[in-house]
Order: sequence, then C-alpha cells, then structure tokens
Amino acid sequence: MLGGMNVKLIDQKLVAECLKMPRAIELVKSAYADLTEGNVDSPLRTALVNEGGTVLYKPAYGEGAGIFCVKVVSVFADNVNKGLPVTPGIIVVNSAETGMPLAILEAGYLTALRTGAATGIATKVMAPEDSKVGALFGTGGQSRHQLEAMLCARSFERIYVFSRQEANAIRFCEKNRDIAGDCELIANPDRKVLKECDVITTSTTSPTAIFSDEEISDSVHINAIGSLGAQRTEISAETLLRSDVVVDQRAACLAEAGEICLMRDAGLIDDDYCPVEIGELILGKQSLGERNKPTVFKSVGNAAQDLVCSAEIYRYALDQGLGVDAVL
Amino acid sequence: MLGGMNVKLIDQKLVAECLKMPRAIELVKSAYADLTEGNVDSPLRTALVNEGGTVLYKPAYGEGAGIFCVKVVSVFADNVNKGLPVTPGIIVVNSAETGMPLAILEAGYLTALRTGAATGIATKVMAPEDSKVGALFGTGGQSRHQLEAMLCARSFERIYVFSRQEANAIRFCEKNRDIAGDCELIANPDRKVLKECDVITTSTTSPTAIFSDEEISDSVHINAIGSLGAQRTEISAETLLRSDVVVDQRAACLAEAGEICLMRDAGLIDDDYCPVEIGELILGKQSLGERNKPTVFKSVGNAAQDLVCSAEIYRYALDQGLGVDAVL
Repeated sequence: MLGGMNVKLIDQKLVAECLKMPRAIELVKSAYADLTEGNVDSPLRTALVNEGGTVLYKPAYGEGAGIFCVKVVSVFADNVNKGLPVTPGIIVVNSAETGMPLAILEAGYLTALRTGAATGIATKVMAPEDSKVGALFGTGGQSRHQLEAMLCARSFERIYVFSRQEANAIRFCEKNRDIAGDCELIANPDRKVLKECDVITTSTTSPTAIFSDEEISDSVHINAIGSLGAQRTEISAETLLRSDVVVDQRAACLAEAGEICLMRDAGLIDDDYCPVEIGELILGKQSLGERNKPTVFKSVGNAAQDLVCSAEIYRYALDQGLGVDAVL
Repeated sequence: MLGGMNVKLIDQKLVAECLKMPRAIELVKSAYADLTEGNVDSPLRTALVNEGGTVLYKPAYGEGAGIFCVKVVSVFADNVNKGLPVTPGIIVVNSAETGMPLAILEAGYLTALRTGAATGIATKVMAPEDSKVGALFGTGGQSRHQLEAMLCARSFERIYVFSRQEANAIRFCEKNRDIAGDCELIANPDRKVLKECDVITTSTTSPTAIFSDEEISDSVHINAIGSLGAQRTEISAETLLRSDVVVDQRAACLAEAGEICLMRDAGLIDDDYCPVEIGELILGKQSLGERNKPTVFKSVGNAAQDLVCSAEIYRYALDQGLGVDAVL
C-alpha cells in the first residue's frame, strides 16, 4: 500500500513567472467560449461556513484543458487584522488521464491574473477600437492586473485611477508606472473626466453604484468585476438599463451578480431578463449593436478561468522543470 | 501581493505514523455522534466525470475538529493496468480560525484506516461481547485495516479469510500475521464455518450477495463496507430484511447504499424505510433489541470520518515537528 505520489508545488512567484497577461487573456477567451458551448463542467461551488468566515470549493473540468482542478479559497475578513491574506487559496490539479494529483498551485495571484484577463478579453471584444482614455476604480489586490489587462487590450493614452482615499490612488499610480509604458496614470482627478472615458473598469467592494449615469458618456465600455454577491452593485440601474449588458456566465450572474439581482428585486427587470454571454460574442453567435449606448461587462468569476490558467501553468512548469517536486 | 503560505506536506508513511487504529476508532466514534447530532457539515460531494474516470470532491467542517478539509479522490479503474493506484487522493486541510491552508495529506492510507475504524466502532457497539470467531471477505486494499479494526474491537480466537482467488486469501493471511497476535488467520476454509462466526466483515466489490442467508447464524454481526454504489450489494435481501440494520448516515445510505436501494427498487421495503444511525446507538438514543437476529452495519463512508482523522494527524505532525514544510 505504501507508495508515493509525485506532486509539483507551484508557489505564487512561480505562478507569476509561468503565465503572463497576454497569454492569460487568450486562455480566458477560450474558457468563455467553452463555457458558452457547454464544453466545460464547472458545477456549483460548495461553501462551508463558520463564525469566522467561509471556505469555498470550486471544481472544474474541460476536455480541452486536459486536467481537473479545484480551487479551495477562503474568505476570512478578519485576516486583514492578523497580517494574513483575506482570501488565501490553493488550486489542486489532477490528471485527466489517470486522476492522479499532479500539482498544487498558490491561487491568489492566479485569481487576480485571470480576473484581470476577464477585463482584458471583454475590453478587446466590447470597447471602442480607438479607446484612448480609461478609468479604474479601486486600488486593491485585483487592481494592478485590471490595469495591466486594460493596457493589453487597447492603446490608452491615459488612465484615471480613483480611490476613496486619495493617498491610495497616488500610491497605486506610482507603484504601477512600471507596467503603464507611455500611458499616463492620473490619481483621483476631478470626476468630470469620466465623461471623456472610453473604458471604465470597476474593481471595488462598494455596495452601491460608484458613479451616476449622468457622469459617463454614451459610448463608454464598462468592466464591472468587483462587489461580489447578490446584494452589492458597482453600477447604477440607470446605466445598466440603457446599456448592452454582457456577462461571463448567464446562470451565475442571474443568481449572484448584485448588478442584476438588485434590479430584479426592485422590479426593474423581468424574470426573463437574459443578458448576452461574452462567449456568444467571442463565438460570433451574438453581436453588439450600434455604439450609441454604453456596454457593460459583468463578471462574477468562473472556475473555467482557473481551469485553463492552471493547466497552462502546470504544463509550463513541467516543461521547464520548474516548481518543487514533493512526494505524498 | 507576493507573500507565501506555509503548508505542511504529510505523506502516506507519516499519516500511518501519526494515527493508529485504536485512536482512529475513537475519532470515528465521535464523528458518527457528531453526524447524528448535526454537529458536522459534510455536504453532498461533487463529482467531475470524463471517459477515463471520476474525480470526487468531499468537503467537511465541524467545530470540534477545528479544521475545514476536503478530500480530492479519483476513481480511475484502468490505473491498475498502469501500475497506479485506482483511487489516488489527497486531503487539503484549512484552518478553522483563519481559513489558511495548513496541510496536504495523502488520502489513500487515511481512507483505508478510517474505513477500518468504522468497522471497529460498529463491532464494538453492535457485535456480541464474547465474539471469538470472525470472517473477512475480500483481500484488497481495505482489508488489512478491516482485520486490524476487528482485532481492536473484540478478542477473536480465529478469523476466516475468504477470497475468490484462494492464493489471495493465503497471501493475505501470511502478510497480516504481524497484526493478528494470538488470533489464528485461516485462508478460504469450507464455507460451512460461516455458521459459527460471531462477526463477518465484507470488503469486496461484489455486485451481488456474497453469502446466502442460510449460511449465517442468527446472532451474527455483519459489517458491510464494500460494494460502493446504489447498484451493488454484498448482503442478501433475506438477511437484511430479518436483521437490525444500522447505517453510518441515513440520508447517504438511503441514496447510495446498494444494500438498501436494490431492496427499494425491488419493492421489498417501503419508501419510509428508516434504518438506525450508528450515532444514535453511540449517543444512547437507540438500542439494539434482543440478540435473536443478525445485526448489519452498512457504511458508505462519510467526509466526517476524514475530517476528524485529518485534524488529529495534522495536530500530531505539527506538535512533533513532522512532515515537510512547503511554501506556496
């Protein structure tokens, strides 16, 4: 009975080395197409809860990825007071051929990267081709990757960075100049600049809309990837109701996205409200209309994104002989 | 963002070192009591399937255990032809206080140990006090721990070991004399000895009953822990219908145990068939009647068993400074 299984350990630094944003955007694009075509199995996550927090188990499998994976991610708000990550996580990778465990990956960096990649592909598919001016709301753990993804998708001349605390916006701009290239990062300008933005990305924990419908232009594209849960929204109902709304996965967003759930609770949309999936745009099964109203991409995140990224990272580490080989 | 989480790796050999059968029996006893009292959260497992096999995700949490855990276990039948384990698995342990991942354990040994411990506590609680003669059907990966658990529970003078292939029974007896002490192990005797057995443990993959009701005594206690799935049974309907049947968890056994499902499918039991839970016996909420008919313990296995055992193994390894400390 006593044998031994070889499992590759891939830490946060190595995850970052194995997968860069441009490739992550391509991978998430394929994941969204797979989701829409039913080529990936990402069942409802399981949640275990105690008085301190929640542990979520998010499994996924797709033939294309060639692996099974599960993300085990915790949400413990009080960790911030203990000097610990609020959402620590790992991903377990199993072989599609033998079911053997193959690798354990640190999940925090990968989650931020693939959430950025969602914004990247949505911006590529949905934002005006000649987008030059962007805005980013929120300067937390996800925001560097959101910025990077925007920069991958369009040739921005300047991106405005908004934070409730001006010092955070200033610090974020300083820290992220390294990836901005020729694009100017401008911390907390007068809000009236929102009117000139071609793309706005929101990555906050705000419970309510962070800008009013009057503040934005008719041709703006919005990526709303923050404010998790059915009771929180980053975007106003006014904006959502006049926009083309596109989601990562219809069933998940109808159940979990506050942007949609709160409108339904308020009687502003019908039970048959049916936003387009970004996979449908990617596959050419749907297209956006004339650019005379805003477009909104809402993502609640999907294990299919973790799946394609984990598969790529594992294969790269294996090919390059990277990672720590442990025996269990 | 780049930080590092410390995760303890506990391989199969160390799992075996950290938890021995007598203690495992005590732990599984407490797990069964917790299950009956609703003190442990072990939601329905999630299964991902492809053409080669299945990966199962079995999470659990209980306040008493002080950890969250999930067992990721694959079932790939063809692995036997590849020199690989058919059911490879690992367990991920997360802190109840912070949600941080704490440890990764090899799961195969632990599963065999805790499944043995189920037989151990059932035999302690249900078998005649003066049981002297036992039988064990099946000589596969679970059987050594089944034997060990029987030996922990009662002072057997002899245990008959049955296998479809006589050579397997002989080899099993030779290999396991080290744990049998004064108890004689006898390979594949004439089946008529079944009539003198006080305890019979079945740990096979048989689709149909492995002995007839006429072959056993009226006072025998049976542990049926093999033949997973709603379409397989190790015990005949005749035996089950005249026995006191006790299960590890009612809901799971009504849904998954072939012993029960096949009787229901055949119209032999009603929809309100309600076997006793072993936790109810342990807690004194139910008791067995006069010893004038067989007793049967049916277990399909529960993540609550993995939970208590994983918690104990992790704590022991931590206290003793054992295991490999990895950084993710």
